[in-house]
Amino acid sequence: MINLEAARRIIAAAEKKAAELKQPMNIAVVDAGGNLVAHVRMDGAWIGSIDISIKKAFTSRAFDIATKDLAKHSQSGDQFFGIHASNGGKVMIFAGGIPIRDGNKKNGAVIGAIGVSGGSGAQDHAVAEAGAKAY
Amino acid sequence: MINLEAARRIIAAAEKKAAELKQPMNIAVVDAGGNLVAHVRMDGAWIGSIDISIKKAFTSRAFDIATKDLAKHSQSGDQFFGIHASNGGKVMIFAGGIPIRDGNKKNGAVIGAIGVSGGSGAQDHAVAEAGAKAY
Amino acid sequence: MINLEAARRIIAAAEKKAAELKQPMNIAVVDAGGNLVAHVRMDGAWIGSIDISIKKAFTSRAFDIATKDLAKHSQSGDQFFGIHASNGGKVMIFAGGIPIRDGNKKNGAVIGAIGVSGGSGAQDHAVAEAGAKAY
Amino acid sequence: MINLEAARRIIAAAEKKAAELKQPMNIAVVDAGGNLVAHVRMDGAWIGSIDISIKKAFTSRAFDIATKDLAKHSQSGDQFFGIHASNGGKVMIFAGGIPIRDGNKKNGAVIGAIGVSGGSGAQDHAVAEAGAKAY
Repeated sequence: MINLEAARRIIAAAEKKAAELKQPMNIAVVDAGGNLVAHVRMDGAWIGSIDISIKKAFTSRAFDIATKDLAKHSQSGDQFFGIHASNGGKVMIFAGGIPIRDGNKKNGAVIGAIGVSGGSGAQDHAVAEAGAKAY
Repeated sequence: MINLEAARRIIAAAEKKAAELKQPMNIAVVDAGGNLVAHVRMDGAWIGSIDISIKKAFTSRAFDIATKDLAKHSQSGDQFFGIHASNGGKVMIFAGGIPIRDGNKKNGAVIGAIGVSGGSGAQDHAVAEAGAKAY
Repeated sequence: MINLEAARRIIAAAEKKAAELKQPMNIAVVDAGGNLVAHVRMDGAWIGSIDISIKKAFTSRAFDIATKDLAKHSQSGDQFFGIHASNGGKVMIFAGGIPIRDGNKKNGAVIGAIGVSGGSGAQDHAVAEAGAKAY
Repeated sequence: MINLEAARRIIAAAEKKAAELKQPMNIAVVDAGGNLVAHVRMDGAWIGSIDISIKKAFTSRAFDIATKDLAKHSQSGDQFFGIHASNGGKVMIFAGGIPIRDGNKKNGAVIGAIGVSGGSGAQDHAVAEAGAKAY
């Protein structure tokens, strides 16, 4: 279960990684219901990324998948193309969202997700990974 | 200016008050542009209040007014009735949002706002007030 | 026809009135199609009123009526109650929108409208009136 | 800071360029919070471009980038594909939006943005550039 304490631990680890990368980020954590537990915008991070970080976290829990991997199937010509128009526009199909699994085990049940936005896709994913590991 | 450090100080004070009232809350802080800086959902707080807390904070900055006071003018028959349909549904017209003024002075420029949702109107306002004072 | 030159004349007159009232305003002008011709936010005017000013202008042209008068019929229990939920939330039912009529004649065709938001209902209406007269 | 006076100076320069190109335009300016300061629709400009001009300005401030450059990363197969579905549909990923930086210095803080829509992508960008320079 992702409570506020866990969300803060996840966010702290993500912030640390973002600081290392010198790229301010928006970081959001959702619970098993896909509902927001906590969000922070680091000083200087893009205001357009507030919404994106929250929606990347939602998307990762909604489909139990990293948004980086969902992206592969959601391009024009691929099997899920158009999925970004579903769920009232809450589905983000680019890197930065990662599911969080029970006990951080590969086959653990998904109990929430982290979403990160504020840099390149590779940076967002790296920061999300650092956060997810801290659960 | 409301940076992340200030938002965290505001949220911590609001959480303390919510704990005293034994009522878990959603607490959100926006900056001068009405954009989210940070949000937390305390354990057990309503998931329907995530959105409301963020929108109460937006509303208080958007009109430089406590949502409790905006409520008085927004009932059927009053001068602002219908304002809740504006701004894409982001205007909340019940207690829990309070503007944050520069230096906490009565005539200071509004530099952001706090929005709280999770209990009665009186509880939400009290928690928002505790948060706003901590700026 | 309300072209950009006319819209600027209307806005200038409205700004003058707002300055007299010492209340910064958002001022918008739409044409016969209900589409925005120009908008200004005076320094210090509420950011929540940007959207409202544009929608008051739309509403006044959409129903060829001052929003102050539409308000009378749109309260709970009255014949148009609920109209604010129509048109994708673009209908504002409180004072500050006024139709602009050809030649400023009472029975002239409606060729556009002005919408003002930033103060009390009475202030918004007064500023809109000053603007409309300048056409 | 982008106040109304600055927005008008920016718009005047953009209008001048649009007149040179003989292409009527919608021109919008937002402040540091991404909120509209002023908008004009030149006579004969597309009504469908009102919304686009405002959203291009928002987008340029939301991500501190020219929309022309954001476009490169937002095509199918690229790292930000799908970003146009975020922020409630307010993200425009084609040319015409340019951030405005403090003192017009390359590394100055972004204090607002201009958005232009009404012609080809190259025309929109050229007009936005002329406006941005006038800050």
